[in-house]
Amino acid sequence: MVIALLTDFGTKDYYVGAVKGAILSINSEVVIVDITHEIPPQDILAASFTLRACYRNFPEKTIFVAVVDPGVGSGRKAILVETRDYFFIAPDNGLLSFIFDAEMNFRVFELTNEKFFAENVSRTFHGRDIFAPIAAHLSNGIQPNEFGVEIESYTRLQIAQPIKIADQTEAAIIHIDHFGNLIINLTKDDLPEKFALEIGGTTINKLRTFFAEAEKGELFMILGSAGFLEIVAFQDSAKKILRVEVGEKIRLRAN
Amino acid sequence: MVIALLTDFGTKDYYVGAVKGAILSINSEVVIVDITHEIPPQDILAASFTLRACYRNFPEKTIFVAVVDPGVGSGRKAILVETRDYFFIAPDNGLLSFIFDAEMNFRVFELTNEKFFAENVSRTFHGRDIFAPIAAHLSNGIQPNEFGVEIESYTRLQIAQPIKIADQTEAAIIHIDHFGNLIINLTKDDLPEKFALEIGGTTINKLRTFFAEAEKGELFMILGSAGFLEIVAFQDSAKKILRVEVGEKIRLRAN
Amino acid sequence: MVIALLTDFGTKDYYVGAVKGAILSINSEVVIVDITHEIPPQDILAASFTLRACYRNFPEKTIFVAVVDPGVGSGRKAILVETRDYFFIAPDNGLLSFIFDAEMNFRVFELTNEKFFAENVSRTFHGRDIFAPIAAHLSNGIQPNEFGVEIESYTRLQIAQPIKIADQTEAAIIHIDHFGNLIINLTKDDLPEKFALEIGGTTINKLRTFFAEAEKGELFMILGSAGFLEIVAFQDSAKKILRVEVGEKIRLRAN
Repeated sequence: MVIALLTDFGTKDYYVGAVKGAILSINSEVVIVDITHEIPPQDILAASFTLRACYRNFPEKTIFVAVVDPGVGSGRKAILVETRDYFFIAPDNGLLSFIFDAEMNFRVFELTNEKFFAENVSRTFHGRDIFAPIAAHLSNGIQPNEFGVEIESYTRLQIAQPIKIADQTEAAIIHIDHFGNLIINLTKDDLPEKFALEIGGTTINKLRTFFAEAEKGELFMILGSAGFLEIVAFQDSAKKILRVEVGEKIRLRAN
Repeated sequence: MVIALLTDFGTKDYYVGAVKGAILSINSEVVIVDITHEIPPQDILAASFTLRACYRNFPEKTIFVAVVDPGVGSGRKAILVETRDYFFIAPDNGLLSFIFDAEMNFRVFELTNEKFFAENVSRTFHGRDIFAPIAAHLSNGIQPNEFGVEIESYTRLQIAQPIKIADQTEAAIIHIDHFGNLIINLTKDDLPEKFALEIGGTTINKLRTFFAEAEKGELFMILGSAGFLEIVAFQDSAKKILRVEVGEKIRLRAN
Repeated sequence: MVIALLTDFGTKDYYVGAVKGAILSINSEVVIVDITHEIPPQDILAASFTLRACYRNFPEKTIFVAVVDPGVGSGRKAILVETRDYFFIAPDNGLLSFIFDAEMNFRVFELTNEKFFAENVSRTFHGRDIFAPIAAHLSNGIQPNEFGVEIESYTRLQIAQPIKIADQTEAAIIHIDHFGNLIINLTKDDLPEKFALEIGGTTINKLRTFFAEAEKGELFMILGSAGFLEIVAFQDSAKKILRVEVGEKIRLRAN
């Protein structure tokens, strides 16, 4: 059984150690995998995208614990999401929005049964005191509905969907990675045989299949390894060259 | 069985890999957990605090290997500390001072039995050549006194304790984390119902229970997740605002 | 069974998580160890040195997956190298050059059997789609020659070897670590009883056995923990002081 962690805790402090210790104290047999602890502080959407980009590589029944939690200690809910193949444990702040978009069927449970929390729950570190113990108990075979009731209402951020009008599609940047590559809400199935992207005043029409083809600083498109179309500047930052942010609109034009 | 690692080795070089390889070569079944390898170089007290802040989250019998070791290769001793629930392996340079303060009963052994060291011990990398093999042999069931004799004299840095005079308490900063939060040597039990802190010319009297309550840059107190009172500047650095260092005196005043 | 990872993927994105998930999906029992994911981007020689410096600390039959792969998606081969004690999986771009120099006997297999690749191999992320699955299948007992045929021709970068002329030896810097320490292609066996190094106009003749002996900024030599002679500036960067790069020639003079 695998528990995979994704947080914005950083790797300099005791936080990640505390979470792992709390898990192993309940299930010493579970395999703990770090996805990353370097999500930009409080960047819920970056966490959501990063999880979306790799969760399907994990074995069935993997339990993902995702904690980017600016509202910790306030009234926000904690949830467990069960999909066909996986479990996700996170604050109810939209962190799982990309998962909700990617999965057809899932159930959401509110984590309320304090029996499965740490004995003294701090107001500032639910990663250690709630999310870690729940994940460990789940890996020990506790059923989702023992942690709390199934709920219908939960936070789902609107991830921009491409909008099709006549022969044009309005897409958007849904993530910018730390190289400055722009990830667009377009997958292989959205793309005509020949196409170009317009972003601000710039048209990009070169689609490459791998990086080694390009010249330094050249802007081009690539079908990225996360499954989305990306705008990339080889050995440079497309974000800086184009001066764009997440949410920026992009026009897809068939050629 | 868990071996938890805490060092200042960084994560860019071969050091951490070498330590893990050395452990797994002796016990391939042990679970290795990284607490952090990014303790500021040679900062023994930061290592001590970080270990203190998370060790009780780990399962019983966990073996902690803590290596921040500016004196490596010189005459400083290497020690194994056995408490009721845990084992600690470290250079004898004060790194375990916070543990000594937190534990009532413990025994200290000097690591001298070269039979359990690597074959060729370098003068510069005892993490790989002494601490890692000892931890692995310990996880295999070797008894503490087989590594060397119990000793009564070892290095214990004075961690400032609060000093109570009449109705006033003089506390001190014992750690500053990488957000610039100031950790104070006061726990819940030290605090009257209503109180304020005086640090330099500044009085801080707001005690919050979680971060989301505060305004940006506001200085306030919080009972931190490591169990100590902290002075925090929301989304800012209390260290920078107050221009203080570890050791700075703070007056606790009952209101 | 251990799979040890060494890449330039960084630890901020989903890449490392995807690789680990892909491995665990094929062999959920294998122990995954991170050596580092912070090799400087595309620095094949740094990756090679880092692997060289720690691989012998790992248990027999460890499978090393080393991915620094500027040519991913182009025609470069993927290879599996079997030595007496270990397996190495990497792109065929010279990354294993230091291993080739250190091992007497080894066999090289080209990884061509798509049966052991991911179902859809991306052009940009062979770490996840080829190297990870191959490593996992190997850990499950698949034999090296099932992944592809043994080959005689593969990329081997020339790691500078010391050149001896009369009583002088011309050595070279083969690696510079992130402290700015200069690693020289000289091992204990290459060194006379008394010697000095000349680099540019500077002569260095102090050989220390450990760091704590030195004064700040002092240039000296040390037999480093990776097994090579190093030029070190205590608490300073020898690289900056001497203004040198990898490949720089150094004269070894017996005294």
